[in-house]
Amino acid sequence: FSTSQTNTIRATLFPGDGIGPEIAESVKQVFNAAKVPIEWEEHYVSSSVDPRTNSFLTWESLESVRRNGVGLKGPMATPIGKGHRSLNLTLRKELGLYANVRPCFSLPGYKTRYDDVDLVTIRENTEGEYSGLEHQVVRGVVESLKIITRHASLRVAEYAFHYAQANGRKRVSAIHKANIMRKTDGLFLTCCREVAEKYPDITYEEVIIDNCCMMLVKNPALFDVLVMPNLYGDIISDLCAGLIGGLGLTPSCNIGEAGIALAEAVHGSAPDIAGKNLANPTALLLSSVAMLRHLKLDDKANRIHDAILKTIAEGKHRTVDLGGKSTTTEFTNEVCDNL
Amino acid sequence: FSTSQTNTIRATLFPGDGIGPEIAESVKQVFNAAKVPIEWEEHYVSSSVDPRTNSFLTWESLESVRRNGVGLKGPMATPIGKGHRSLNLTLRKELGLYANVRPCFSLPGYKTRYDDVDLVTIRENTEGEYSGLEHQVVRGVVESLKIITRHASLRVAEYAFHYAQANGRKRVSAIHKANIMRKTDGLFLTCCREVAEKYPDITYEEVIIDNCCMMLVKNPALFDVLVMPNLYGDIISDLCAGLIGGLGLTPSCNIGEAGIALAEAVHGSAPDIAGKNLANPTALLLSSVAMLRHLKLDDKANRIHDAILKTIAEGKHRTVDLGGKSTTTEFTNEVCDNL
Ligand SMILES: CC(C)[C@H](C(=O)O)[C@@H](O)C(=O)O
Ligand SMILES: CC(C)[C@H](C(=O)O)[C@@H](O)C(=O)O
Repeated sequence: FSTSQTNTIRATLFPGDGIGPEIAESVKQVFNAAKVPIEWEEHYVSSSVDPRTNSFLTWESLESVRRNGVGLKGPMATPIGKGHRSLNLTLRKELGLYANVRPCFSLPGYKTRYDDVDLVTIRENTEGEYSGLEHQVVRGVVESLKIITRHASLRVAEYAFHYAQANGRKRVSAIHKANIMRKTDGLFLTCCREVAEKYPDITYEEVIIDNCCMMLVKNPALFDVLVMPNLYGDIISDLCAGLIGGLGLTPSCNIGEAGIALAEAVHGSAPDIAGKNLANPTALLLSSVAMLRHLKLDDKANRIHDAILKTIAEGKHRTVDLGGKSTTTEFTNEVCDNL
Repeated sequence: FSTSQTNTIRATLFPGDGIGPEIAESVKQVFNAAKVPIEWEEHYVSSSVDPRTNSFLTWESLESVRRNGVGLKGPMATPIGKGHRSLNLTLRKELGLYANVRPCFSLPGYKTRYDDVDLVTIRENTEGEYSGLEHQVVRGVVESLKIITRHASLRVAEYAFHYAQANGRKRVSAIHKANIMRKTDGLFLTCCREVAEKYPDITYEEVIIDNCCMMLVKNPALFDVLVMPNLYGDIISDLCAGLIGGLGLTPSCNIGEAGIALAEAVHGSAPDIAGKNLANPTALLLSSVAMLRHLKLDDKANRIHDAILKTIAEGKHRTVDLGGKSTTTEFTNEVCDNL
């Protein structure tokens, strides 16, 4: 990682749109309070298309992530208009962000129907149903191509087992529909099995996606680490977020080529409450913790993580989305106090 | 529908494998007790492949459903071995079963984390990700084709709105991922919108599948009728079943060309408890109710439906899968007593 002269680590920060700047401010405040040696390089979504990226993301901002190797990203709303790629998809593509990692755990003190969720979804983030290859065969008949490659499947499977081992997790479940898509999901499973062989201490299982969703809502404690192709990951990671309260509470981190890690809050930009100091910074704060862990700043990560959880558990300050009345600032101050 | 000389209605019965014959017996007993004017034509899965269907389903059994227009089906286990089509997929294909309808409602007395589920999933059952079209492009690169047609999308959308109206339902949600699969899911949505125009009294909305799954686990009461392409239907219908206790409790009915209706229990054949009088007949019983409604035998349908729900609510007899100790026979006798 790139360090400046004063021995701080440089990281890219995309505050993003809508509530993004407010929750990014919250992260900066908490990092200052915890004395995290990070120097942010801030980049905003541009108001015009950069021809070098064919998107509203500037070339400089992508270079910043590449150079720093780590970044944190708030919600980005893709401006409406044809011909421009979604900002999220552009980032995934340009930075080769091949794995989306989302730890999902019940937050003591914030009650949902589930109190026993503790799992991690690892989503292949570059291919599958997201190939963009579609066409009309004849009028009224269209097709989309789902592409699965050995390269991308092995890469995400390797990451999943590596992650499981590094984090003391015991089981990896590959989620698929290979009984129907024998070749594509079949190849994905073949790759998972190959990698599983190298990790005899980790239990490997295969679960069909429909059954997986049923089991997740009945008994999420059955799962530990889940790895899957792109669309299943999109679906299951949101389902899991729902179990513990929604996307406002779940961290996410994207792992890219050359070791890049871009942590992000995956919720929307909530334009209706933007600028009102009402946003819940939890997802971005927990994502920043994921970034710190990636940087091996585990002490700082643990301290901040515990302070966030304590703040939620005590429930003195709860933002509007969680049924409370506190402002972003009040919640953030409380996290700082709990450090 | 075909009626015999004595004015009974003929219906095809596939008891199926494993626990199938036991739960089919339960339906027969309840129908007798309720004096339902049905005469069953029973067909079993054959032990050898019928060349006319290239599957273990005989040509005669398919003809029976076509002639009668209605049928009831227990679980079928496709014998392992290459080159033979799955029995479920064969039935869908051969009988043109284009819509799979699954009402999903909380059962008073059987507690899960949810007590407010009352929705119906309507799944396109013939195309999409189930095209079977897959190939290897080069070594390590495979693709599957998802096919969406205007014909099949309009047909299932028509059915969904028709169903909503006929059943006093207020809202139809089309589930999709058209932000990624713009052409295929886009065509599906276009068709739903066209049909929605004809039903001004029914609210129409579009929900992205990942968001839908999150909302379903947070607040399933938000949904009423859901219509969607094949794979999303596979996933979401099982997720919904999980909310209320699992596939052992949810009815299902397939609607086919020329008005065919094949009701079915979608759970497995449970070979481990087969023949032990331990199976829960609820899903097949509720499916038989769906069949009766299709036949416009609403009085009989309501009586049986209420007797099943009363039996579950009282909880005197609960089968092993629901944590009880009762036999299939005891549960069935209780349903008959409650008629
Ligand atoms: C916005 C959309 C393109 C995106 C996706 O489908 O990947 C989102 O749902 C996500 O999970 O990041
Ligand atoms: C067994 C399998 C082919 C089938 C499907 O995917 O349609 C099953 O999951 C179902 O929902 O009936």
